[in-house]
Amino acid sequence: MNGAESLLRSLVASGVEVCFGNPGTSEMHFVAALDAVDGMRPVLGLFEGVVTGAADGYGRMAGKPAATLLHLGPGLANGLANLHNARRASSPVVNIVGDHAASHSRYESPLTSDIKGFARPVSQWIHSSASALTVGADAARAVQASLEGPGQIATLILPADTAWSQADSVAAPLPRPSLAPVNEDTIAHVASLVQGGVRTAILLRGDALHERGLRAAGKIAAKTGARLLSDTFAPRLQRGAGRVPVERLPYFAEQVVDFLAGTELIVMVGAQAPVSFFAYPDKPSWLTPEGCRLAVLSHPHEDGTGALEALAEALGAQDAIAGLSVRKSFERPAIGPLTAESIMRSVARHLPEHAIITEESGLAMAYYGLTESAAPHDFLTLSGGAIGSAMAVSIGAGIACPDRKVVNLLGDGGAMYTVQSLWTQARENIDVVNVIYANRGYKILNNELKRVGASQDGARAASMFDLQDPSLDWVALARGMGVEAVSVASGEDFDAAFASAMQRRGPMLIEALI
Amino acid sequence: MNGAESLLRSLVASGVEVCFGNPGTSEMHFVAALDAVDGMRPVLGLFEGVVTGAADGYGRMAGKPAATLLHLGPGLANGLANLHNARRASSPVVNIVGDHAASHSRYESPLTSDIKGFARPVSQWIHSSASALTVGADAARAVQASLEGPGQIATLILPADTAWSQADSVAAPLPRPSLAPVNEDTIAHVASLVQGGVRTAILLRGDALHERGLRAAGKIAAKTGARLLSDTFAPRLQRGAGRVPVERLPYFAEQVVDFLAGTELIVMVGAQAPVSFFAYPDKPSWLTPEGCRLAVLSHPHEDGTGALEALAEALGAQDAIAGLSVRKSFERPAIGPLTAESIMRSVARHLPEHAIITEESGLAMAYYGLTESAAPHDFLTLSGGAIGSAMAVSIGAGIACPDRKVVNLLGDGGAMYTVQSLWTQARENIDVVNVIYANRGYKILNNELKRVGASQDGARAASMFDLQDPSLDWVALARGMGVEAVSVASGEDFDAAFASAMQRRGPMLIEALI
Repeated sequence: MNGAESLLRSLVASGVEVCFGNPGTSEMHFVAALDAVDGMRPVLGLFEGVVTGAADGYGRMAGKPAATLLHLGPGLANGLANLHNARRASSPVVNIVGDHAASHSRYESPLTSDIKGFARPVSQWIHSSASALTVGADAARAVQASLEGPGQIATLILPADTAWSQADSVAAPLPRPSLAPVNEDTIAHVASLVQGGVRTAILLRGDALHERGLRAAGKIAAKTGARLLSDTFAPRLQRGAGRVPVERLPYFAEQVVDFLAGTELIVMVGAQAPVSFFAYPDKPSWLTPEGCRLAVLSHPHEDGTGALEALAEALGAQDAIAGLSVRKSFERPAIGPLTAESIMRSVARHLPEHAIITEESGLAMAYYGLTESAAPHDFLTLSGGAIGSAMAVSIGAGIACPDRKVVNLLGDGGAMYTVQSLWTQARENIDVVNVIYANRGYKILNNELKRVGASQDGARAASMFDLQDPSLDWVALARGMGVEAVSVASGEDFDAAFASAMQRRGPMLIEALI
Repeated sequence: MNGAESLLRSLVASGVEVCFGNPGTSEMHFVAALDAVDGMRPVLGLFEGVVTGAADGYGRMAGKPAATLLHLGPGLANGLANLHNARRASSPVVNIVGDHAASHSRYESPLTSDIKGFARPVSQWIHSSASALTVGADAARAVQASLEGPGQIATLILPADTAWSQADSVAAPLPRPSLAPVNEDTIAHVASLVQGGVRTAILLRGDALHERGLRAAGKIAAKTGARLLSDTFAPRLQRGAGRVPVERLPYFAEQVVDFLAGTELIVMVGAQAPVSFFAYPDKPSWLTPEGCRLAVLSHPHEDGTGALEALAEALGAQDAIAGLSVRKSFERPAIGPLTAESIMRSVARHLPEHAIITEESGLAMAYYGLTESAAPHDFLTLSGGAIGSAMAVSIGAGIACPDRKVVNLLGDGGAMYTVQSLWTQARENIDVVNVIYANRGYKILNNELKRVGASQDGARAASMFDLQDPSLDWVALARGMGVEAVSVASGEDFDAAFASAMQRRGPMLIEALI
C-alpha cells in the first residue's frame, strides 16, 4: 500500500464517499488508488470552481464532507471563490491538494507556488503531509476538522512523494465533534428577555433553519409573538407547506432598516447581527435599529437547535405551532411575455415534494415569497456572495440526494462563471433543471451604479454590465456539453417546459428569456 | 473629481490604455469614471480567469501593462491561476481590486475576505489605497512596479470609499525602470569560458528571445559553435523564416537529459538552470549534466540583450549570422485522418507574416519544429503550467497587436477552463483562429499515470482523464458565444478550413477531431 492508497482508505474509513476532482500529474497515485479502493465515487469537473462548488452543495445537503482533489496551487486557486462560499455556508469540505515531491520543491519549476498561501484565506485547517506513514492519520484529522463548529474547510496538502512512498496503515476515524451545548443560564437569560413584552425578532442560521430547529422556533413564536427571521443568504433553509415560515432579511440596507423598524430585541441563533452586503455612501452598514437589544442564544459552534428546544421548554411553549405554511394551488400563468414573477409562480406550481432549490439570481430572490406556498423543499442560497456557485452547488446537492429533484434558479451572468458544470451534470446524470434568467446583463449592477451615487450615462460603463453583443445562446451552450435545453419567452411556454421538466429525470436547461 | 477618476486618469497618464475587467458593486465608481476619462478601453470578461489571462497576453506583446478590474477577494481569486502564469511569464500587469469601504470592512459581510492574502502568492507588489487623495500616486507607482525587473504583478486594492471620496489631482507618471546593465567583468568572464573550446549551450529567456537579442546570440553561435536554447515554456519567442533558430528544451526530464548530454557549459541569459516540470520516482529533477559548468551572463532583472551584444563584440563575432531559418513551402497534407502532425503542417503552410501563435497543447508542442520553417511569427507558451491560459492570452495579444493574426493552438481540456474567452473574442472582434485539438481527454495524464509508476487499468481512474460521455461539441459551444465554428476530421478538410480562416478577419474556431 502506498501513501495515496492509505489516504484514500482512511478517507473512506472516516465516512467520505465522494471525491470531486480535477487531477494533474502530481495527483496520479491518488487517481490510480481509486480503482484499488472501494467506496469512493470520483466525479470529474472540467474546472476547479465546479469541483469546490459541488463539494459545497454536497456538504450542505449531506451534513458531512466530500473530498476535493486539486492540482497544485493553481488548481486550488481556481477553486477558491467557491471555497469562500463554502466557508460562509459552514459547509464541511476536505480539500486534497497535490504538491511537488519534497525533493522537487526546492526548484522553481513552472508550477511551484505558495499552496498554503492560496489556502489560508478560505481554510480553517491546513496541513501538509510529511510522510506516507502519517498521511492516513492526517486524512482522518482533516475529516474531523471539517466537522468542527458547524462545518469548516480543511485543506490537506499531499506532496507527490508522500503519495507514492510505502505506507503501512489505514487510520481509524476520529470522533465526530459535536456542537457545544448552550448553558442553562443563557437559556434562562434569553427566556426572561423574550418574556419582557418587547417586540422581538429571532434570527436563525445553520441547523436552526432545518425542520427540528424550526419547529422549536415556531413554538416560541406562537407563545411570544416573536418574528422568525433568516439571513438574506442562508446556506440551507427547509420551507414550504407544513413547515414553520421564516421571513428572509431583504438584500438592500434601506430595505433591512424598514424591515427591522420597531424591533426592540434581536435574539441570534447561530447568526450575527445584520449588516449590509455592501457599503454605500451615506448609508449605514450596521442595521440593528437604534436602541434595539442584541442577545446571543447560541454562537455558530453551539447547538442552536437544542437551545431553541430548551428555550421553548423554559417558556412553556409546548403547544401546537400556529401559522404553518400552507400549500397553495397556483393558477396557470396568464398568456403573455415571461416575467420573473411568472417564472416563480410556475416553479411554485409544479415543484415536487422535497425538491432542492438552489438560487443565484436577484430576480429569483425578488419572488422568493411565492415558493413559501409550494410543496416542502430545501432552499440553498449564495452564502458567500461570490457568483458562480449555484451551477456547481446543484451537482453536489444532486449527488448527496439522488432521489430529490434539484431546481437551479440563476442569472445568465453568474451561470457563465462555472458554465462547465453542465458537462458534469450530464456525465453524472444529475436530476437538475437549470432555469437561466436570461436578461442578458449584470442587471443588478445597473441598479447598484445608481445606488452608490455614481452618475452614469455613458456607453463604456454600460458595456461592462451588458451581456449582449453577442447574446449568449444557452440552448447551444447546454447542447455543447450534452445537456438538453429549450428556450422560452412566454409565461405559458415556460410553465409547460417547467412542468414537463418535473416529469423527467436527468439534467435539463430552460433558457428563460425575460 | 473623485478617487476613481483620479485613479483612472493617473493610469492613463502612466500609459495604461486597456482595462480588462469584471466589476461588481464595490467598483462602480471606477466603471462610471470610464465614460468621464478618455484613453482607457474597457474589455469585459465573463469570468476573471479571462480577464487576467488577457492581461498576461497583452503584457507579453505590448511590453507594458494593462489594468485588470476585479471584484473583491473572490473576483481576484478567480483570476489567480492566470496571474500565476503571468508572473512566470514576467508579464507586467496592474490589478485593481475593489474592496469594501473602510467603514464596512470591520463587519463580516458575506464578501469580506483577506484580499492581500489572496494576492500575495502571485504579486510582487501589493498596496491598499488609504485615501482618495493618494490613490492617483498609488496608481502611478503600481504601473512603475509592474515594469520593474523584466515585468511584475502589481496589485492595488481600492476600498470603495477611496473611489467615491473627493480627490484633487492626477499623478504624473514615474520613470520607467530600466533593466540593469551587466558589468564588463561578467562579460569578459563569460567570453573567456565560451572561448575555451567546451561544448556550450546558451539558454535564453525574456527579451533575449526577441529579434535583437537573437541576432546577437546568433553571431555568438556562429563564432563559437554554441547551441542556442530556449526554455520549454518561453513566454514569447520570435522565430520563423529569417530569424535565428533556437532549440526548445523538451518537456520530459529524460528527454532533457538526452538533449543536454555532453554539454560542458551552460550560459544562462535571464534563465535558470533546467529543472524538470514535475518530479517522478527515481528520476532527476535537476537536469544539468554532471560536470557541466553553469555561468550566468544575465539575471532576469538585467539587460540580457545588451549583454549578448557586448559578448558578441568581446568575441569579435560581428560577422553575418549563419543558419537563419528558411521558409519552406509545405505540401498540401495527404488525404486521410487528421493528425497532430498534419495540423501543424497546415499551420506552417498558411501562417501569415507576423502572426502570433499561442500554444497550450502537448500535441502542438510535439510538432513545434515544423513552424520554424513558417513565416516569421511570435510564439507564446504556457509559461506557468496552469492550464486555461491560451484562450485568454489570445485576447490580450490580439488587442495589443490588432493588425496581426492570432493562431491559438490548444487542447480541449485546457480550452474548457476559460471557455468564456470565446465571448470576449466575439465582442471585441479579436482576429483569432482557435484550433481545438479535440482528442476528448486529458491525454497527457494517461501518459503521466504510467510515467509516475502508478499502475492503472481501472475504470475509475480512466474516468478522470476522459472527456467523453458526453463528448464536448465545440461548434455548439462557440456558436453559443457568438463565434463562428467548423468541425473537421481529415487532413485536407483542416487544411482548407485553416487556409480559409487565414483569409478572413475576426474570431473563428476549428474543432480538429483527432
